[in-house]
Amino acid sequence: MKLIVTWCVAVLLLAAGAAAYVEMGLESPWTFNCEGTGDDARCVKKEAEPDLPVQTLNQCKLICGSYGPLWPRPSASVTLGSGLQQFTVAKMTDLIVVPEEVGGLMRESMAIFRNHLDMYHPDYNWIEGTAPWTVPTDPSIADHNLYIQISVTEEVDRLSLSTDESYSLDIVPAPGITTVVIVAQTFFGARHGLESLSQVMNYNEENDCLQIIDSVVIDKDNPAFPYRGLAIDTSRNYIPVKDIERTLDAMSSTKLNTFHWHITDSHSFPVMINSLPKMHQYGAYSSRELYHPDEVRGLVEYGRVRGIRVMPEIDAPAHVGNGWQWGPQEGLGDLAVCVNQEPWASYCVEPPCGQLNLANENMYDVLLKVYQEITHMFQPVDLIHFGGDEVNLNCWNTTDEIVEWMQTVGDGTLSEGHYMQEWSNFQNRAFDLFTDANNGTQATGIIWTSTLTEQGGVDSFLDKDKYIIQIWSAGNDTIIKELLENEFRVIFSNYDAWYFDCGFGAWVGEGNNWCSPYIGWQKVYDNSPHEMAGSQDYYDQVIGGEAAMWSEQVDQVGLDAKLWPRGAALGERLWSNPSSSWEAAEVRMVHHRQRMVQRGVAAERLQPKWCFQNEGLCYA
Amino acid sequence: MKLIVTWCVAVLLLAAGAAAYVEMGLESPWTFNCEGTGDDARCVKKEAEPDLPVQTLNQCKLICGSYGPLWPRPSASVTLGSGLQQFTVAKMTDLIVVPEEVGGLMRESMAIFRNHLDMYHPDYNWIEGTAPWTVPTDPSIADHNLYIQISVTEEVDRLSLSTDESYSLDIVPAPGITTVVIVAQTFFGARHGLESLSQVMNYNEENDCLQIIDSVVIDKDNPAFPYRGLAIDTSRNYIPVKDIERTLDAMSSTKLNTFHWHITDSHSFPVMINSLPKMHQYGAYSSRELYHPDEVRGLVEYGRVRGIRVMPEIDAPAHVGNGWQWGPQEGLGDLAVCVNQEPWASYCVEPPCGQLNLANENMYDVLLKVYQEITHMFQPVDLIHFGGDEVNLNCWNTTDEIVEWMQTVGDGTLSEGHYMQEWSNFQNRAFDLFTDANNGTQATGIIWTSTLTEQGGVDSFLDKDKYIIQIWSAGNDTIIKELLENEFRVIFSNYDAWYFDCGFGAWVGEGNNWCSPYIGWQKVYDNSPHEMAGSQDYYDQVIGGEAAMWSEQVDQVGLDAKLWPRGAALGERLWSNPSSSWEAAEVRMVHHRQRMVQRGVAAERLQPKWCFQNEGLCYA
Repeated sequence: MKLIVTWCVAVLLLAAGAAAYVEMGLESPWTFNCEGTGDDARCVKKEAEPDLPVQTLNQCKLICGSYGPLWPRPSASVTLGSGLQQFTVAKMTDLIVVPEEVGGLMRESMAIFRNHLDMYHPDYNWIEGTAPWTVPTDPSIADHNLYIQISVTEEVDRLSLSTDESYSLDIVPAPGITTVVIVAQTFFGARHGLESLSQVMNYNEENDCLQIIDSVVIDKDNPAFPYRGLAIDTSRNYIPVKDIERTLDAMSSTKLNTFHWHITDSHSFPVMINSLPKMHQYGAYSSRELYHPDEVRGLVEYGRVRGIRVMPEIDAPAHVGNGWQWGPQEGLGDLAVCVNQEPWASYCVEPPCGQLNLANENMYDVLLKVYQEITHMFQPVDLIHFGGDEVNLNCWNTTDEIVEWMQTVGDGTLSEGHYMQEWSNFQNRAFDLFTDANNGTQATGIIWTSTLTEQGGVDSFLDKDKYIIQIWSAGNDTIIKELLENEFRVIFSNYDAWYFDCGFGAWVGEGNNWCSPYIGWQKVYDNSPHEMAGSQDYYDQVIGGEAAMWSEQVDQVGLDAKLWPRGAALGERLWSNPSSSWEAAEVRMVHHRQRMVQRGVAAERLQPKWCFQNEGLCYA
Repeated sequence: MKLIVTWCVAVLLLAAGAAAYVEMGLESPWTFNCEGTGDDARCVKKEAEPDLPVQTLNQCKLICGSYGPLWPRPSASVTLGSGLQQFTVAKMTDLIVVPEEVGGLMRESMAIFRNHLDMYHPDYNWIEGTAPWTVPTDPSIADHNLYIQISVTEEVDRLSLSTDESYSLDIVPAPGITTVVIVAQTFFGARHGLESLSQVMNYNEENDCLQIIDSVVIDKDNPAFPYRGLAIDTSRNYIPVKDIERTLDAMSSTKLNTFHWHITDSHSFPVMINSLPKMHQYGAYSSRELYHPDEVRGLVEYGRVRGIRVMPEIDAPAHVGNGWQWGPQEGLGDLAVCVNQEPWASYCVEPPCGQLNLANENMYDVLLKVYQEITHMFQPVDLIHFGGDEVNLNCWNTTDEIVEWMQTVGDGTLSEGHYMQEWSNFQNRAFDLFTDANNGTQATGIIWTSTLTEQGGVDSFLDKDKYIIQIWSAGNDTIIKELLENEFRVIFSNYDAWYFDCGFGAWVGEGNNWCSPYIGWQKVYDNSPHEMAGSQDYYDQVIGGEAAMWSEQVDQVGLDAKLWPRGAALGERLWSNPSSSWEAAEVRMVHHRQRMVQRGVAAERLQPKWCFQNEGLCYA
């Protein structure tokens, strides 16, 4: 009978009286039983026997399989009970025992957790942020208490590469009360614990309440990699603040911890630098497509509460252009050269072109101001991405001012080697400028692989103690081993698995875009940073991985489907780094996608819903 | 000064006083001038000269190029003026002179048009459906009248393949008043005229008003093909009603006229058949994933008002399964066989399997009831899609009941030829049942290409006067010519250009899905039904084309990006069938995509916005 409560919208139109529901075929004929064990466990759909209790798919999913509905699966040992306890949000209480420094963070995190529970309600009101919970008539549900206790020992309130993100989660049943205990060293671990807690429960349609696995032990779940990132480009196309917030929400649901914000590029300069208003006047697509410093600070905080470092990238010396044109007007000369130059293919990898003008000292003054305001928006900065990719030497070598200047510095030649040396000099000056801007605190730089990091050269151009190298060439590139042999720390973003823009139509010319085909979640999942060419012997130097969403062909309206659930596949790879392949994760992946949608993320549908309801039967 | 009005949200945070805006870099430094003529005309971005008037990109786009911002481009002669008139929605009046039978439709269409104009406002409120227009201070704008006169002569209120969809649109300037005259034979033409009218105007940011090309002559714009379709599958995954409505909105913006609703398949049966409640009880994914007959009727009407025929497909005899399992329970025997049978690859093309049970006469009774309710929901039905694709003979030939029955009918053998004959018999009976259900009115059937339409057989199985063949094999299939030689009318949905599900990850196994790679809008655009293998000599039999969105890997959250703007590329191909290729349409395509987003459709971004602002510079 109660089953019908949540179906009343459709039903009221049609009929009164309970018998009518069955006649109208609105009562589900199915029950779902968990069969098999471990990774092979499946919820099997069967016709319910008359008068025998049924188990809904939601119920079965909670208790079936070694990891139940957890995503990413814990790297620690997990024991999940086979019973369920129904409860209501009204009877949920908590006790938070944390250092004062992170009390506010923990409270906000708890509020987010509670909101996630409301989102499980199928009639959640997205505009008002509320769910129309009713009070179950059964007192053993309505009166059941859920008590959540969280303790944190360290006062760390900013994520660093050495932050302990581990947590333990225990759920202990007792008559009338279920006790949840989350223990973590840091706030960041504790919030991961809350995330896991939200995943061992879901909606119970029969009683319009929540249900939780009655007994859980997750003992010290800990990420395999300290850097678990997602790069978003807001220069090719602008992404509004609320869509970045939603992206941070989604990242937190899968325990990704670094939002790498590729803010600027040659296409546009969408961030407001107060001391240099012409940067965005010339560089933003419009005054509506601009990040105000307060908005940036808001996003940094939004991420922090969700366990995410928001890290800026101001790509240089290539990938600059629009926004840098106003130098001559102010008597500063050309700050950038080749800006929007034609034919573009001679001067850059994609339209529009542009590179910083190495010959102009004023460029460094402007760059310092940019860095100063950026550090104020993102402070404190422990990691800074310098970009540093895809310099086109022909641009510099066809610019009179630079050609003349080259003959007055270094070895005075126009050789490729000399250009590389001056680029390297630029990079080192940029590093020092950033340290100045960062109040003298040296942040670790990240830099993309490029000709600067090619065979034989990298240790002469870059200092392994200052830079982490982000590898975006294919996973079998021989440079990987060389970088590791040279003691660089690396982050993998190999385009053949972790570039989420691949596979769509071309945006210059016809056919498909350069890194086609589209990369399915299975390939994303199986891309282990420890199994790249040459990476096997350097576990400690491989600090993580990151998927990149270059935005030539995406803006806010299509963003979610390109990021998710593939980003979640990345999340499990980087958190759990399982020895098993995607097959063992498929059922949980499809389930997690559904959960992301419940939380307002427009994650791509991977399969017919039939596969979700008939686990294991959509195989090749 | 006025430019600032719409920027006040960002501005209020920061500063008071007009000078501050310039200092903050919020005033655009750019002006856009139209250079070149015809298809080569481009809006060129330049730095504005101090004290000289600027032209915004919105203004330039209206008056630049042979077709301005019109999508699809008219097939008729078009003359667009080079001046713009600013006006307000408050000063818009209309006079509608139409037969009484279509008066209501025309009024609704006008209301939709007015709503579209509100959506052009950048601060349109999607929840309330209103725009915060202000009154321009300049009386020559605030007091300017826009008078729209529409006349229709025929009383046709349902679309058929012979409906005249043409319209003429004239915009005539005069002091104080701009007159718009739309003349059409039918309501359907007139609403296309309103659509075109909405496209020759856009938002003026300076004065918070609208602007319209001051003088336009479109003389009898007429579609190249009478069938311009989009097929959506709601069985593999359910698509909620409001998302289908949005799809119909989007179709109307590009003058597509047929929504081919592939309602059911083997995966689920999401439509409520009142006399057969077990169909959806067993067949719907849940009671929340079900179309009520009132909702279906609502969608049929929603489409009609927007010039769109909503046409049902109840695929048979293959592509049935879930929803058909309850026969034995009711003493009707197996209505379908091989339902969810394993291993699926032996019995169907994708999981789950299922085919109608040809040996069971009760199946025909049930099918009649389904058809009866379907005709009541979609009435009157002039076109009905029978599906008829991908029958797996092995399913039937391994089912004892069917094998036994085969030996009692026809030639009594189990030969492939005999199975084909019985399938054909089924199809003919289904056709007659549908005619019965349709109150004796014979509708034209549409059927997919299949082994029933293969070389040498088609005229023995199907009657060219009863069926239109929808070709989904590649555009170079030799069957095309044979079908046309046999005098069949055809609709093209060749998968190599018009299957919008291609190119994503595999959903069984790994790698990419079967019809990869992803099809870019350029290829969609260039796929002319008159230039398929063998179609060149049969213009009259080629009645149109259709893109298909099979829903294995899409539901409401990712739908728009997969459909649009590629569906708009299809729309122009089918409306205008230009002799030119995608290159000539690119600037308008990118603009139309922006317009679709303004209207609430989450159409995929094709290029960086830099390309939108720098027309013609993103080339290969």
